[in-house]
Amino acid sequence: MKKILNDPNNAAAELVDGLVDYYNGSVDKVGPGAIAVNNLPDDKVALLVGGGTGHEPIYHGLIGPGMADGAACGDIFAAPPPNVILDATRAVNKGNGVLYLYGNYAGDVMNFKIAAQLAAAEGIRVETVLIWDDVASAPPTQKENRRGIAGLIPIVKLAGAAASTAKDLDELVSLVTAARDNTRSIGVALSPGSIPATGKPTFELDEDSIGIGMGIHGEQGVGIEKMMTADALAEKMVNLVLADDLPIDSGDEILLLINSLGSTTMMECLIVLKKVKAILVEKGVNIYDVLLGPLVTCQEMAGISVSITKLDDTLKPLWDAPCSSLGYTKL
Amino acid sequence: MKKILNDPNNAAAELVDGLVDYYNGSVDKVGPGAIAVNNLPDDKVALLVGGGTGHEPIYHGLIGPGMADGAACGDIFAAPPPNVILDATRAVNKGNGVLYLYGNYAGDVMNFKIAAQLAAAEGIRVETVLIWDDVASAPPTQKENRRGIAGLIPIVKLAGAAASTAKDLDELVSLVTAARDNTRSIGVALSPGSIPATGKPTFELDEDSIGIGMGIHGEQGVGIEKMMTADALAEKMVNLVLADDLPIDSGDEILLLINSLGSTTMMECLIVLKKVKAILVEKGVNIYDVLLGPLVTCQEMAGISVSITKLDDTLKPLWDAPCSSLGYTKL
Repeated sequence: MKKILNDPNNAAAELVDGLVDYYNGSVDKVGPGAIAVNNLPDDKVALLVGGGTGHEPIYHGLIGPGMADGAACGDIFAAPPPNVILDATRAVNKGNGVLYLYGNYAGDVMNFKIAAQLAAAEGIRVETVLIWDDVASAPPTQKENRRGIAGLIPIVKLAGAAASTAKDLDELVSLVTAARDNTRSIGVALSPGSIPATGKPTFELDEDSIGIGMGIHGEQGVGIEKMMTADALAEKMVNLVLADDLPIDSGDEILLLINSLGSTTMMECLIVLKKVKAILVEKGVNIYDVLLGPLVTCQEMAGISVSITKLDDTLKPLWDAPCSSLGYTKL
Repeated sequence: MKKILNDPNNAAAELVDGLVDYYNGSVDKVGPGAIAVNNLPDDKVALLVGGGTGHEPIYHGLIGPGMADGAACGDIFAAPPPNVILDATRAVNKGNGVLYLYGNYAGDVMNFKIAAQLAAAEGIRVETVLIWDDVASAPPTQKENRRGIAGLIPIVKLAGAAASTAKDLDELVSLVTAARDNTRSIGVALSPGSIPATGKPTFELDEDSIGIGMGIHGEQGVGIEKMMTADALAEKMVNLVLADDLPIDSGDEILLLINSLGSTTMMECLIVLKKVKAILVEKGVNIYDVLLGPLVTCQEMAGISVSITKLDDTLKPLWDAPCSSLGYTKL
């Protein structure tokens, strides 16, 4: 796999520098792998995200006005170390506490927990909301075993809006928990991305097969099937989301995200969107807004995911708020 | 190449329907392949873009508030037919004329010219600005032989802002011509995309080679070289842009776009950005804003382009205006 790199073993550090360059003066590097929006208001309740690099634009490309305040970046596909998370925590803390919001992966959970303890020892209050939207990774009764996938995009955006208005950390935790609890996703994999340092694929899959529910690193899903049409795939994905424990009925309002895992084209995402929307509209579901594109990726992996966030009177105004970041901007 | 499709020969039509679904009520399909923002103000000077599909999000994903008013979409990699352009023209025309803004490719030029004649016969005034930002495709003295590549993104955004404020079509032509004349791009290709209907690659390139200046369909560039580091490539690309006939000197303000042709990751784009920005800052150039991501693609093609738009007191307020579209949104 040809890639445009300097030293593949230094790719994570270089991309973080490039990300700070992208933000062009509005974001500071506050430690190796730690970045934060500068000039945060003094009384702000802070929102910190983070995870491994290599999945751009997440999570570190989701900071900016109305989005997260800072991010802790790990090596490629690796959790950020506790000291990186602590550096980012110190930078975003404005005295009103910090919410850690990240995907439910063992390495991330371990390191963010250690960082939270280190922050507490410095007098910084930290709370945590884990993202676990992937319905294929565990039954609804075991949410704590579910992975966080593309549903993080609407969740971080809603959290960013909440962090701009919340009076305290408790209110932010409550709003973000509601956003998380109202979000479900299902992904499918067509072909793997590659690990930049080795060029090796992250998983293997036959040329005529598709991994239903497979995770973004190739984690086990609900089954390997033969390739099928976009319409058949869309129907299968929507039905897996609707069969979960979040009731989505006629009259409900939702956000709909069609995500590309990397090299899957917008053409394909749009064709899947057409069928997914038709199925939901047929059920009487009201689609309040649509997001589409390569937002949660795994290098040049091919695959797609469908995420649904159910809105209510609390979440809708948070969605309506404008925001700006590399990964998602809303007017 | 596994793709998520129904009938590959119907992909263009389905993706246009999906695009209308993405816009979720704010965009109408006004004919096969023709789409337009609805509820355009009565006195608006109209901006119409268009081209072949398969390069999403361009051009048809660039319509919305502060962006283009409508788009004419062709089949995959094919110019829109004149009747499609005419349908879109009628829909966006509000009595003050329509600007056609599109990439300088023979098929597009032919069909948009015919459509302009048909529109004129109906009393709709049409003017045209061609996008020809690719410095690798012809010498500076032969701009009319240059291809339009990723520089179209800042040009369409500036044009969209101008179309929101211009008092008449002549003023819009003048502003958009200035944006076009101040924009230069250079692209490189690493590996081809594939044609959805056949699965065949759009061009061939050795595993250890990189096509400098190669076009987004594999058109001839300035040379095939051995793969090199991101830093060496960034330097080569910037130097090709700076060597062109647009003076970019210390103190000048520019927009900088690092575009992925498809499967090239944001990681790679960010690493290239780091070096490109360092070179420009070293020269004293002031980077006013940065754009980055897969904005002008050719399916899962791997490659990257660098575009520079030089700003002045006329263009800067146009850049500052907010806009919203599938492809580019600015708060």
